[in-house]
This record gives sequence, C-alpha cells and structure tokens, in this order.
Amino acid sequence: MDHGSDILLSLFIVFVAAQVGAEIAQRLKLPGVVGEIVAGCIVGPSLLGWIAPSEPLDVLAEIGVVLLLFAVGLETRLADMRRVGRSAFAVGVLGVIVPFALGSLWAHGSGFDWAKSLFVAAAFVATSAGITARVLQELNVLQREESRVILGAAVIDDILAMLLLGVVTALQSGAELRLGHLALVLVEAVGFVVVIGLVGARVMRRASNLIDAPINPLSPLTIVLALCLGLASAATQFGLAAIIGAFLAGMIASETRQRETIEHQTRPLLALLTPFFFVVTGSKVDLAQLASVDALLTLALITAIAIVSKLIGGFLGALPLGRRGALIVGVGMIPRGEVGVVVASLGLAAGVFPPRTYALIVAMSLLTSIVTPPLLALLFREKGRSTSL
Amino acid sequence: MDHGSDILLSLFIVFVAAQVGAEIAQRLKLPGVVGEIVAGCIVGPSLLGWIAPSEPLDVLAEIGVVLLLFAVGLETRLADMRRVGRSAFAVGVLGVIVPFALGSLWAHGSGFDWAKSLFVAAAFVATSAGITARVLQELNVLQREESRVILGAAVIDDILAMLLLGVVTALQSGAELRLGHLALVLVEAVGFVVVIGLVGARVMRRASNLIDAPINPLSPLTIVLALCLGLASAATQFGLAAIIGAFLAGMIASETRQRETIEHQTRPLLALLTPFFFVVTGSKVDLAQLASVDALLTLALITAIAIVSKLIGGFLGALPLGRRGALIVGVGMIPRGEVGVVVASLGLAAGVFPPRTYALIVAMSLLTSIVTPPLLALLFREKGRSTSL
Repeated sequence: MDHGSDILLSLFIVFVAAQVGAEIAQRLKLPGVVGEIVAGCIVGPSLLGWIAPSEPLDVLAEIGVVLLLFAVGLETRLADMRRVGRSAFAVGVLGVIVPFALGSLWAHGSGFDWAKSLFVAAAFVATSAGITARVLQELNVLQREESRVILGAAVIDDILAMLLLGVVTALQSGAELRLGHLALVLVEAVGFVVVIGLVGARVMRRASNLIDAPINPLSPLTIVLALCLGLASAATQFGLAAIIGAFLAGMIASETRQRETIEHQTRPLLALLTPFFFVVTGSKVDLAQLASVDALLTLALITAIAIVSKLIGGFLGALPLGRRGALIVGVGMIPRGEVGVVVASLGLAAGVFPPRTYALIVAMSLLTSIVTPPLLALLFREKGRSTSL
Repeated sequence: MDHGSDILLSLFIVFVAAQVGAEIAQRLKLPGVVGEIVAGCIVGPSLLGWIAPSEPLDVLAEIGVVLLLFAVGLETRLADMRRVGRSAFAVGVLGVIVPFALGSLWAHGSGFDWAKSLFVAAAFVATSAGITARVLQELNVLQREESRVILGAAVIDDILAMLLLGVVTALQSGAELRLGHLALVLVEAVGFVVVIGLVGARVMRRASNLIDAPINPLSPLTIVLALCLGLASAATQFGLAAIIGAFLAGMIASETRQRETIEHQTRPLLALLTPFFFVVTGSKVDLAQLASVDALLTLALITAIAIVSKLIGGFLGALPLGRRGALIVGVGMIPRGEVGVVVASLGLAAGVFPPRTYALIVAMSLLTSIVTPPLLALLFREKGRSTSL
C-alpha cells in the first residue's frame, strides 16, 4: 500500500512539474516542451530528488512518446510523405554519415581505439523524432514541407542507426561482420515500413466502416489505439524504435473517414501522458558527473560536434527546399533525446566506455533536445514573417 | 530494448483482450466489464500466460481505476450526495458489520484461532467501488438514487475497512489496541473526506475562471487531472484507498463551469486506461490453486457468505429506498475486487494464513466482482421496466 502511494505521488509530481514548466516556458515565448524537460532536471535525482527513476515511470514515458508520434502520424498523409521521399532520404542518409564521421574522429582523438570510437560515434547518429515532433505540433506547422521532410528522414535515420549499431556492436567483440545478416536486418526493417505504409493505408481506407462496428461508443479510437500499440510493439521486433511503429499506425489511421474524431479524442491522451516522456527525459541528466570545468568543456565540445554535424547533414540533404528550408530541416534533426541515451546505456553495459563518457553522451543527447525547440520556433517564426512580407 | 518491446507487447495484449472481451460480453447482453475480467483470466498466467504480473501493469491498472472513479465523481453532485447521506451511512456501516461477523464465524469454524479469523474476515469487508461504478456508468444510471447511495456507502465502507484492518493487524502481534491511535486515524480519514468534499467544492465553484488561465488549450483538463492525481495520492496518506481521493476530486471538479468539457475529454482517457484495471484484476486469479473439489466447495461457500452477508447489510441499510431499491444497493455493494486481494496479500505476507487461503480469498474477491455486473444490469433493467409500466 505504501508502495502504491509512492508511485501515485511520483505521478502527481511529474505531471504538475510538467504543467508548471510548460506554462513558464510558454510565458517566456519558448516551446512548452523545453519547460517540461527542464522541470524534469529540477525534480529529478540530480537536484531536488522528488522523483526517482522507476520502471513504471519509464513505461509511462514510453506510452507518452508512442502516443505523441501516433498523433503526429495522424496529421501526416501518406501522399504528402511520398512527395518528399527523395529529400527525406537524402537528409536521413547524410544526417547519419556526417555525425558518425565527426563523432568517431572526436572519440579516436580523445583516446579510444577505432572499434570503441565507432561505438561512441553511434550515439551521435540517431535523431529522436519525439522532441521535434512535439515542437512542430506546438507551432502548428506539421503540414509544412519541412516538417514532412523531417518526419520522413527520422524514419530513414532510425533504420540506418539500427544497422549501424549492429555493425559497431559486432566490431567490439572482434566478431566477423556478417554482411548477409546485416542485409537481412535491413530488408526486414525497410520491408516493415513499406508494407505497413502502403498495404496498411490501403486496408484502412476500406476499413472505415469496420472500425465503427463494435458496440463500444469509442470504438474508432479503441481500435486505432490497439493498432498503435500493436505496431509500436511490432516495430521493436524488427529492430526499429517503437515510435516508428506508432508513427506508421497514425499515418495509416489518418486514411480513415474517422480521422478528425480520432485526432480530437487523442488530444486528452497526449495531455495526460506525453508530459511523462519529457519530464522523465529531463530527470535522467546526472548533473554531478558534469561538475568540473574539464567535463563541462568536453560536454560543450561534443554537443557542438553533435549539433553541427547533424545540421550539416540535414542542411545538405534538404538543399532542394531552399536555404532557409534546409536550415529548418537541419535544426529539426538535431535532437538525439532518448536514442542517444539508449546507445550510451548499451555502451556502458558492454564495458565499451567508462561512466564519465556515459554521462557526457547522455548530457549531450539531452542538451541537443533542449536547444532544438527554441531554435526551431525562432526559424519558423522568421520564416512565417518573411513569407508574409 | 528487448525489455521495452516486452512491455509494449503486454500493453497490446491487455488492451486487445479487453476490447474483445467487452465486445463479446456486450453481444451476450452482459456488462462489458465482465468480459474484460474474464479476458484477464484467460490471457493471465493461469491459462494462456500471455501476460505476466509486472509493476508497470499494476501502475497502469491503478491509474485506470483512479481515472474511472474520477469520472464517476464528475457525474456526482455534492448536493445529491448529501441528500442520500443517511442511507449511505447505514449501508456502509451494516455492509461492514454483517460480512465481518459472518466471515469471522466461517474462518473460526474452519480452524483458525480468533485473532486470525478476524484478519480473514477483514477480507470479506471492503467493497471495491470500481466494478460497480463502471457498471452503473455503462447502464447510464449514475444519476439514480440507488447509485448515489452505493457510491456514498463505498466511501464510508472504505473508512471503516481501513480502521478494521488497523485493529485486526494489531491483534495479530498481540499488541495492545491503542484506542487513542485508532481514534486519530478515524478523525484523519473522516476529516480528509469532509474537508475535501465541503471546502474543495466551494473553492472549485469560485475557481472556474482560474482553471482556464493557463496557455495550455487543454488546461481545464490538465488542472483537474493534477487535482485527481494529487487527491488520490493524498488519500493513501490518510490510509484511504486512492480511488476515494479520485472520486472526491471528480466530485469537486463537477462544481466548475467546465464540467461538461472535462467529462467529454475524460472519456478517451478511460477508453485507454480502465481496461488495464479490469484485465489485470482478472489475470490475478490463480486457477491452479483451486483445481480440487474440496477447494471449489470451499470457494463456493465463502463466495456465498461474501455475497449474502454484503447483500443483507446493504439491503437492511437501504430499506428506506423501498425493497427493490434496497436490493439494488445490496447487490451494488457485493464486489470486493482488488480490496479483498490487498487484504489477502497482507495476510499472506504477514504469515497469518497459508497460500491456499490466500488463493481462496483472491478467487472469492474476483468472483464477487464477476457476478455483480450481470445482477446489477438485470435489476436495473427490471426496475426500469416496472417503473415504465
């Protein structure tokens, strides 16, 4: 019983911290999500210690980001995604190559052997679409071409990052690279995305009557939520992030007649659950590990590398959108968020690098998540202004 | 990563099992909640073993039932509750005394000493308002006088059960009963309910403008959700069930001008989260422990005692409502649900009784939850018919 009351108290603290943080951030003309992440830093173990990391909180955070990407998918039409396919592909590929190259150069320069350097560099690679998606949603620009390129690139980016992680993990053990196996992994992941995206959309277009059939008055919603959880879970089976599956589920659900109802009913779910993702993300920064001038300088350096490398990759890939548009895409790809944290955890668990490198990578991942939202807001606001002139 | 995918798969299974179970039950003219509980039995460890008990599932179940009672509170006006206060009090008190008396007689008769018998009897006492509340909601009869008496009695019942648990726990250790301490516990619990109910309602009536103030477009909802989590957590601090706090939060939130918007926005939350409560509840029945004629006979006996004793207590307390109304109230008080499970867990952990008694009490608690919904549906349907004649 005491335990139950502890977890309810944590839920209350996380939820209220998120609301207060978002409110303050928005009054300061910053995206609400920045406030939520910072609130997480503050109530987390590093500072106030009001919440402790726990499995239930992680699961709620996961459900929150899954629902967020589902909602973003709901606002994304497959036809529009296809139109930006080429740019998204270029952004995804270049956005992996440049950070991986610069990341491994830094790691090797700071004393890791090449095999380990490549592992460290893998943490520089994967964009976390959650943060950017929320900012795009807050700014109400999900329908813009740049937003579509970012979301498409995030899917491609995730596939490449997964492959890369497979390669660098194999390199650590000195095991021979099994190219056949990697090819299979690639085919599976691409196959999952393509089959769900194309076949799923066609099925959903015809299923509009079917999802109204159950007695449950909220049945369109419950059926697509089941689809969302199912595809999120299936995506992880194919080695992809759960949010990729959720995004695809939202995208194909948006082909149904009931799209607007579903969109409307999803909003309260986001209001309750996404704050858990952002506050928990913020609470994972271990400020103590960074409490030295040396650590802070290194952090500044690797954060700069992470930002600049992704910016260059994204910018070059999106140049067909014009320079301002390419800049927006580049910035939108910056956040590493929880993906960097996952890679760092794997590296720590495998003994590839020491706790300090772990803390640095986690802090870098979160810093990229904190700087992106205000930059993105600024760029979209300026773009809006220059367009309206 | 594997772990994350496991939990997403569990969420998917629980959610889909609930939808399928509810749909089948409703097609058979049974309340949906019966289908969800049975679905839980089927996918749980006893039969298919597709889901395993885990802390995140328990937390989601807890959030689900907290939101459910919050929604029920939203449909309950304080003024209406006051009108049924006297009947609710009589139902609450008699609904504790009769099951406790009969329960301890059975336990003593089956070989426990008196101290242990009283502990076993405590598991017969507390009504779990969640199951009944959901059925009343499904039947759309929350505004009926019988429903209000049941909800009010559930609050009183919970306070008494908590006191009783304090007494019987003290008796086990042979410790002297500290009456002063118990009086303090009682005053705290009653004080919590009265202060929140009366002062809270007054504050909320004046706060209607305030909860629209934040920038967040969903702010009335987010503020009352914070209130709900906060009071649920606070209730556990006062020794009460979290759902009592959530119910009070809903009841005072219903005094605001934005009541209908909040009610409307709460529905998708219930659709996503309450299934977890019912499926997880069902999954906790350990069928293997009951796989003998002897065990089944004992189970039938204690379930009969649990049902009849609560029915008598509720019926006598609610007689002023007329015989049919009193019968509805008596039936509505039958489900022990998770409260019986909690008491049984405490007893098992404290070594008061063996695993078999534990399994019997858990199964009894769940059986009372499974038989109540169809009975309640039947009674309300008949009552509706006889009234309309």
